Amino acid sequence: MAKALIVGSVALDTIQTPHGTGERILGGSASFGSVAASYFTEVSMVGVVGTDFPGSAVEQFKARGIDVQGLEMREGRTFHWSGYYEYDMNQAHTNATELNVFADFSPRLSAEQRKIPYVFLANIHPQLQLDVLEQMESPRLVAIDTMNFWIEGYKEELTQVIQRSDFLLMNDGEARQYCECPNLIECGQRLRALGPSTVAIKKGEHGALLFHDGGLSFFPSYPVIELKDPTGAGDTFAGALIGYLARKDDTGPDNLVRAVQAGTCMASFVVEDFSLTRVANLGPGELRERVATLRNMVRLPEPDEEALESRLAPSLS
Amino acid sequence: MAKALIVGSVALDTIQTPHGTGERILGGSASFGSVAASYFTEVSMVGVVGTDFPGSAVEQFKARGIDVQGLEMREGRTFHWSGYYEYDMNQAHTNATELNVFADFSPRLSAEQRKIPYVFLANIHPQLQLDVLEQMESPRLVAIDTMNFWIEGYKEELTQVIQRSDFLLMNDGEARQYCECPNLIECGQRLRALGPSTVAIKKGEHGALLFHDGGLSFFPSYPVIELKDPTGAGDTFAGALIGYLARKDDTGPDNLVRAVQAGTCMASFVVEDFSLTRVANLGPGELRERVATLRNMVRLPEPDEEALESRLAPSLS
Repeated sequence: MAKALIVGSVALDTIQTPHGTGERILGGSASFGSVAASYFTEVSMVGVVGTDFPGSAVEQFKARGIDVQGLEMREGRTFHWSGYYEYDMNQAHTNATELNVFADFSPRLSAEQRKIPYVFLANIHPQLQLDVLEQMESPRLVAIDTMNFWIEGYKEELTQVIQRSDFLLMNDGEARQYCECPNLIECGQRLRALGPSTVAIKKGEHGALLFHDGGLSFFPSYPVIELKDPTGAGDTFAGALIGYLARKDDTGPDNLVRAVQAGTCMASFVVEDFSLTRVANLGPGELRERVATLRNMVRLPEPDEEALESRLAPSLS
Repeated sequence: MAKALIVGSVALDTIQTPHGTGERILGGSASFGSVAASYFTEVSMVGVVGTDFPGSAVEQFKARGIDVQGLEMREGRTFHWSGYYEYDMNQAHTNATELNVFADFSPRLSAEQRKIPYVFLANIHPQLQLDVLEQMESPRLVAIDTMNFWIEGYKEELTQVIQRSDFLLMNDGEARQYCECPNLIECGQRLRALGPSTVAIKKGEHGALLFHDGGLSFFPSYPVIELKDPTGAGDTFAGALIGYLARKDDTGPDNLVRAVQAGTCMASFVVEDFSLTRVANLGPGELRERVATLRNMVRLPEPDEEALESRLAPSLS
């Protein structure tokens, strides 16, 4: 088992969905990512919060065995995102983004953290992602995420980060925007050509595409009925898959596919409730069951070759 | 091998996409459905055309071995749909719909046609679908498709058709609209409760969900790079799967899954060119290769149960 380092935002979110409201609830990419990864391996979390950050939230991380030495507390207020979702919960609408202490975030890693082999740089300024990469000694796998804002304003820096990464995560809209290409298969191929041997394109409820050394893989989303709040699904997906890879310390195609499947299943829990309520409290068998369900959903019996070729020239058959 | 009966529209379409234009090209649900089904079994096609319908189009059907006895020619012009697609080719935009001879379409089946065991009633007026069902003697499987227009204006008749069908096909928007429910999993379950033992919800480039006796299955779309014109994808999907079921004369869960996979692959050909150009001219191995590719895309290695359960209580592991 190898360790995972997770760098990103820690936030207090105010969220409205058709199913309820959450006020100043624990969120942020590093929060979701670290909790998800903690189901598989030892996690060291890097982020910054303000003095308003509740001790109970820190306790939530600790309860999942997460090392919070790298969670810096600074004078000021915690990053606050306020937004809402309408019935189409694939689309987040922002009311306000208050960066607060996150505006001056500049991650300084400890000697120990620099040696961690599996790294997830969640959605933060590409320059900060590069700064972290400079500090790392010789990571075995660097996974990165980003968002439309950095694609629009900091494409050059972002491209440098992508070139130095092993595993790139983007959602479908971001991939299309970055590549200026509507076809996701083409986007995946182009992104992979930039450097990362693995590219995951996340499509929300429509699943995820994985471009990797083993070819092209597709993962449906777990069929969630109780969709309450989609916030954090992408970070949970990423955190779980990095954690899984680190646990097995194996980046071969089979383990990669298993890791991504664990990610899609873990993401299906986070959306069933606000904040970390559901995903931080999984019971025995819950994840295993969802993995089994998804396996069954894509199970294909052996093809009948004869039937597939039988009437190419119907006049002859 | 059992035969398939396919009832629907035969049209001349004028279509604009970002990749070109087609003027008065062969289209319509019965055209796409019949050609797709013809790769697997003997097809009898039922539809109506006007005197402007080109003989070369009839020859295209015949070349695929399709029985066109039920393709009635009437005084007047052929059904004409004119529309366009923008870069998001999931969405068709209509310029004009001229029903012409299709307005008085009233399918009368021959004694032979009434005995055909596999029936696909493509998107036509639900009352016509009921009329056809009245004429059938004892079909083994009735599959139906529909569209938003009938859901809005003829929900009661449509519900009767659904109740009498075995296999319902809807796209995601139609399923949500009919069920008045945003969650597709819930939609599928509710539609199935109305009667049909199998429900397919088509999501275009995002694949298809299948609710059936064997549980819930998911099929990704084949990763098409050369997407030229999405017209007919849904009808091709449906026609192929009905044809496949008829060929094997087997509606068990395994054959159902194989049939739907054949459908997704067949649909991937039709969108690579306008009209039937690509899908009516498949060569040896082409379909088999796409089936193999899709199998590989959803191939999952055996899960590692230990890894999935290892850190439920991280302090203990």
